[in-house]
Amino acid sequence: MKKVIKKILEKIKNNKTFLITSHMNLEGDALGSELAMYLFLKKLKKKVLICNNDPTPQIYEFLPFSRVIRPSLKDEKFDVALVLDCSDSSRVGKVKDYLSNARCIINIDHHISNTSFGDINWVGPNYSSACQMLYKLFAHHGIMDRNIAVCLYTGIFTDTGSFTYANTNQETHKVISSLMQYEINPHHIDENLHSLCSPQDLSFISKITSSLKYDGRKKICWSLIRKWEDKGFDLTEVIFSVMRLLREVEVFLLFKKLDRGKVRVNFRSRNYVDVNHIAQFFGGGGHKRASGTTIEGSLESVERNVIHFVKRYTNGLKTRKKR
Amino acid sequence: MKKVIKKILEKIKNNKTFLITSHMNLEGDALGSELAMYLFLKKLKKKVLICNNDPTPQIYEFLPFSRVIRPSLKDEKFDVALVLDCSDSSRVGKVKDYLSNARCIINIDHHISNTSFGDINWVGPNYSSACQMLYKLFAHHGIMDRNIAVCLYTGIFTDTGSFTYANTNQETHKVISSLMQYEINPHHIDENLHSLCSPQDLSFISKITSSLKYDGRKKICWSLIRKWEDKGFDLTEVIFSVMRLLREVEVFLLFKKLDRGKVRVNFRSRNYVDVNHIAQFFGGGGHKRASGTTIEGSLESVERNVIHFVKRYTNGLKTRKKR
Repeated sequence: MKKVIKKILEKIKNNKTFLITSHMNLEGDALGSELAMYLFLKKLKKKVLICNNDPTPQIYEFLPFSRVIRPSLKDEKFDVALVLDCSDSSRVGKVKDYLSNARCIINIDHHISNTSFGDINWVGPNYSSACQMLYKLFAHHGIMDRNIAVCLYTGIFTDTGSFTYANTNQETHKVISSLMQYEINPHHIDENLHSLCSPQDLSFISKITSSLKYDGRKKICWSLIRKWEDKGFDLTEVIFSVMRLLREVEVFLLFKKLDRGKVRVNFRSRNYVDVNHIAQFFGGGGHKRASGTTIEGSLESVERNVIHFVKRYTNGLKTRKKR
Repeated sequence: MKKVIKKILEKIKNNKTFLITSHMNLEGDALGSELAMYLFLKKLKKKVLICNNDPTPQIYEFLPFSRVIRPSLKDEKFDVALVLDCSDSSRVGKVKDYLSNARCIINIDHHISNTSFGDINWVGPNYSSACQMLYKLFAHHGIMDRNIAVCLYTGIFTDTGSFTYANTNQETHKVISSLMQYEINPHHIDENLHSLCSPQDLSFISKITSSLKYDGRKKICWSLIRKWEDKGFDLTEVIFSVMRLLREVEVFLLFKKLDRGKVRVNFRSRNYVDVNHIAQFFGGGGHKRASGTTIEGSLESVERNVIHFVKRYTNGLKTRKKR
């Protein structure tokens, strides 16, 4: 057993009260790992709370026990805070205030950019997801049931883009095969996660994807969205999923006009462009293939600056690749 | 080892020349199983030909050795014909004429409707795909390599709808995990199969999906396409994949205006409507969840008749379901 896994299991064994949290802008791996950990600790008769900065998006409400998640805490104290799928303690948002109420922070995460902010840090960039890490942790303890399996499946499924991203490997499918024992219905989970749109939503998305902009080489593709509305699901991801139907495009961007002169920029890349790097240049961050940032300025000026940078960045890569 | 697998392996061992074929309207499992079987037999130093009724769709040209597939044969004789992923000998199309040139027909298929038309029939409706069956066959022989693995992965991936259909189970992921050993790039395969559109294609698709029609209960959704162009990929499937983003819709239809006063109607359903049954009423056919037919008449009159029928049909089901 890995030393750090042993350490985490010991810490869990020797303590009674736990707080679980994850990053802002909740998605499948964040919620899947939180709820799986909650159910695991409950099986060990621990006292557990989950608290998140953001409300649970509607599409994840099918996850078992998703209703136990709380938007805030009183002045509860905790023996241990478990921060899952979260690369930096600032990404837990307002929950950061409660972290100091815990005597020990355990940080379990698969982001390469993790800052090791915990007292115990298990950072596994070779794992597809925090959920795949938790599978390993629980397996060491011999604990699994249908509810935990549904949570872990969902986190792995979403973070691997339905098992197609480069983070999917032999081990990922081995874990999924093992989870499938627990009568998981992949069709039901897929439908919950991907069949989300109202007729109005689909019409909105289609209007965006019918008039995309491209750079001259058609390697970069983007859209400006003047009126963005938050939905009970990740509309950004749905738009990108349609944009991904395009062949040969490497970088996908969305520019969304926000209130108070700000623009949210989301980046996705397909094969080789490190969009985490690009987002960091503009004060944001994320993963190599998915990142984002918020920039002050008009939609047009932000578009101009970012696209200029991305063009130069990808051209530079091209040159470097040729060498 | 299953008796029938033993029988097939013996038949292969004791013979020298083989013909491989599959069904008309080739897709991933047909081509994946054909090419995997071809490579397996080549490793055993057999003389092998693949011949299909239809040409290989462009999107499957990435499959290893896809260029060996022939559109016709001379008067070659074969010891054994292997008919893969094909429920009925009539579905091999014109290749049927060559089947009589073989002394023995081996039929390996996972369709429940298989008519057991071969001399040896291995029909496995519990397998996700013919490719998953072949994995088992090859495993008994201890033969596998990267090219075979890519073919089998592709067949399983396409026939399980990226591992989300109800035919996906524990065994499916176990097989995939084992195939992943051979440095398969799932992202590359997914991209070959799903990232197909030019900017013009995506704009065309988006125009269709931005103005869909719905019945009053929003259970049926359809579009009229006045100018249809065949592509090197299945544009129909791509449009349906975008329509499937809609929640709660059960039946999806496309009406395409063809030459000479004809209209092609494609049907898809999600959970319970038997669109094979509906298509049969209009002289067509297919599967429970995917079917089609061609009807004479104007776009509007065909739309009126078909939608009227589908509404009555689904309302009837609703009533029956309530009982």
